[in-house]
Amino acid sequence: MWKPNRDSHLTFQEQIVDWIKSRIERGDWTVGTKLPTQRQLATQFNVNRSTVQLALDELRADGLLESKVGSGVFVANNSWNVLLSNSQPNWQKHIESSIHIPNYHTIQLINKYEQMDHIIRLGTGELSPELLPTKEIEDSLKNISLESKAIGYSSPQGSEKLRGILCNYLKKRGIQTLPENILIVSGALQALQLIAVGLLEEGSILFQEQSSYLNSVHPFQSSGMRMISVSRDTHLTNNLRALKGKRQSLFYCVPTLNNPTGYSWSLEEKQNLYSTCKELQIPIIEDDVYHELLFESSSPAIKSFDKSGQVLYIGSVSKTLSPGLRIGWVVAPSPVIERLADIKMQTDYGSSAFSQEIVAHWLANGLYEKHLVKLRKQLKVRATYVEEILEKDFQKIATWKKSEGGFYIWLRFHNPIVNKALFLKLINQNVLINPGYIYEPRDLHHIRISYAYASMEELKKGLKILYQLSQM
Amino acid sequence: MWKPNRDSHLTFQEQIVDWIKSRIERGDWTVGTKLPTQRQLATQFNVNRSTVQLALDELRADGLLESKVGSGVFVANNSWNVLLSNSQPNWQKHIESSIHIPNYHTIQLINKYEQMDHIIRLGTGELSPELLPTKEIEDSLKNISLESKAIGYSSPQGSEKLRGILCNYLKKRGIQTLPENILIVSGALQALQLIAVGLLEEGSILFQEQSSYLNSVHPFQSSGMRMISVSRDTHLTNNLRALKGKRQSLFYCVPTLNNPTGYSWSLEEKQNLYSTCKELQIPIIEDDVYHELLFESSSPAIKSFDKSGQVLYIGSVSKTLSPGLRIGWVVAPSPVIERLADIKMQTDYGSSAFSQEIVAHWLANGLYEKHLVKLRKQLKVRATYVEEILEKDFQKIATWKKSEGGFYIWLRFHNPIVNKALFLKLINQNVLINPGYIYEPRDLHHIRISYAYASMEELKKGLKILYQLSQM
Repeated sequence: MWKPNRDSHLTFQEQIVDWIKSRIERGDWTVGTKLPTQRQLATQFNVNRSTVQLALDELRADGLLESKVGSGVFVANNSWNVLLSNSQPNWQKHIESSIHIPNYHTIQLINKYEQMDHIIRLGTGELSPELLPTKEIEDSLKNISLESKAIGYSSPQGSEKLRGILCNYLKKRGIQTLPENILIVSGALQALQLIAVGLLEEGSILFQEQSSYLNSVHPFQSSGMRMISVSRDTHLTNNLRALKGKRQSLFYCVPTLNNPTGYSWSLEEKQNLYSTCKELQIPIIEDDVYHELLFESSSPAIKSFDKSGQVLYIGSVSKTLSPGLRIGWVVAPSPVIERLADIKMQTDYGSSAFSQEIVAHWLANGLYEKHLVKLRKQLKVRATYVEEILEKDFQKIATWKKSEGGFYIWLRFHNPIVNKALFLKLINQNVLINPGYIYEPRDLHHIRISYAYASMEELKKGLKILYQLSQM
Repeated sequence: MWKPNRDSHLTFQEQIVDWIKSRIERGDWTVGTKLPTQRQLATQFNVNRSTVQLALDELRADGLLESKVGSGVFVANNSWNVLLSNSQPNWQKHIESSIHIPNYHTIQLINKYEQMDHIIRLGTGELSPELLPTKEIEDSLKNISLESKAIGYSSPQGSEKLRGILCNYLKKRGIQTLPENILIVSGALQALQLIAVGLLEEGSILFQEQSSYLNSVHPFQSSGMRMISVSRDTHLTNNLRALKGKRQSLFYCVPTLNNPTGYSWSLEEKQNLYSTCKELQIPIIEDDVYHELLFESSSPAIKSFDKSGQVLYIGSVSKTLSPGLRIGWVVAPSPVIERLADIKMQTDYGSSAFSQEIVAHWLANGLYEKHLVKLRKQLKVRATYVEEILEKDFQKIATWKKSEGGFYIWLRFHNPIVNKALFLKLINQNVLINPGYIYEPRDLHHIRISYAYASMEELKKGLKILYQLSQM
């Protein structure tokens, strides 16, 4: 317990005032908090009650405390509090009106519990620390040579060296482009933010697949877009035509190893989407951050058969090399890239030059592709391990598709048991899941299992607890 | 000149269609552009006119081209164009309504000409490549050891290691804080963006000094804040009280080595601002990114006598170590930090882990402070050099204050000659200046001279041209 310091140059009263203020300002004592009694405080501080009283009087005069007759002394205010309580950033307003509250609350809890070491993270969409090439990156730092120009403020589109190297790399994905058609971003989420702010007016429509990653993050909702989920079936063309009307719209998809389902579109489905969107003048955002993690042969990107600049393509190293690099890229027609680059400069003056150097080095020297070969093997082992557990324990209560790559298995329970209550019961047992309803509010059947993050032992233990609780 | 390829698997017609489309989509031919005649195209492509005609017919059917009888064929549309022409991002709207157009246009030109190698940049607010410790950073990369946890997704507030080290570093600036009260950001501009979005509602007031850096960037205007410039004189308290009314407000200042003036507030002025803002419950944003470049003893930060959490403090390594790192920090009460961290996570999932490691390494090992000693000496030499030129040539036409540190000399011409015409005439002579009117629209007297960026030779040459043109 804190006590005033006899050796301080401040009086006891001053020290007590400062200490109470710091508790209020740090948020330990929020507005409305009742303070301990004067007697309790005097005992804690080992000072006279009159000293406590003088300190509280001073704080009352400052407006930070207030007395309520017969009930005690309360925290009344702080300068920041006035701001924090009155102001809601736009995204918050939009989220609250557009997304089910339990959904939003679940995401907040996921973010919170992901910070805790003792939690088994059955759904986390990132590589386990043991899968990251930490040592290899550390070694590669020794071989990186810097140029002064490269570590100053960036050009609006990002490192020219990296953009040149990416042009070559993207050729292997069937994508022909030029450095001027590439924008370096701080990860795929930033790309979506820039598109939302820079290309779309409020009230535009963002089409997406059912069960979409975009429902768990909020770049488009926070800019006032309308999100419409459509199914990828034979009615796609007619549905899009009817729904679009005269509004601006975009189609967002993860056609290779979708998040959260792990499914990939067939070549025919991709071609169908492309020609439909071309006809209806609906640009496509192709989020392709998982394709390098396909276990078998690569499925062509939609961008690879795009001759009309219809497709805005997004890639990243966050799922493959290291999320800490915060490096992704957008490929699009020049005017689109220029617009997005302009907004990025107004936002953060470009991405880290050092991260860009590291990614350029890994791509140019073949380190990246060598690492991918190894990573795919490790992920495959983990996928098989989880599938064996599922086959053993979950066959009577759930279905799933064998993983084709990436991080996820989209586990479907026969009964609609995946609700917030199950989510909370699991947290109570230190198991954190990503329930299907954060990707599609009406879905109470699915869980996104990720075999990429937790250790094998944790996966086993977590799935066992999941099985037990799903039986209750 | 491009011609269709005989060896392609595509027909001539298909190749021509693709080529024209790519020119349209890349923005080489914008909407409204008139195409060459069929005869000219046939000659260029070395094909029959009928082939050209069929290709153009196809593009007309797609809606990309249109014929106007008697005047030719024009670019009519492209998918992105519909988006780009209809939608204006919010910031653009706000900028256009809140800032003088010539101001905004000048800033656009500065951004453009800063990309060109042959331009003498007399105003650029960044370290010259020769002042960056490029070799030293490169060497330091060899000594950085990484932990897997550190290169995954960041915790919302940024690297705990770096925040701990910053607590120690900030003590030397008289600032007592805890890691939980620090947020790592991608440079000071991002800090301002997060504050604008996260803490303030539209219509809030942002107070600032006259001649303010904030008029040349737009984080607050784009969120719909009202900017009010006040002078730092004896009426400050009364002015703030009258102007604030019942609105939310913040006071933004760069009290040590202000951008663009280079001036520092006296201790008394700082204390006066602090107590006034405390009384009126106006939180202060103290932008302190230049203080490490003071040539003589350091002037205390306002944050150093803040006991009430009134001051939000911003620091950065962009002006001292390398802008390419994109690392800055915010010190504020916990609830403010949590709000800003939450929004940052929704925006870009944190700053580069590698940049954070590099900054932590430089701070913890004393490399940073060693570098600062050297850098201040180099800047002092440059400042003296420029001041000698000014004394020799400009004494009859302008005044200035001897630089106390940082990058800038705020050169004031006796006559109001610093207008857009002068700016453009200088560009014509390959000299780029930052005119005072981008920092204060009514100011036609000042130029922000930066002695930090151009080489000594360029500084001499650029100032000579400035002198000549200012005489005309």
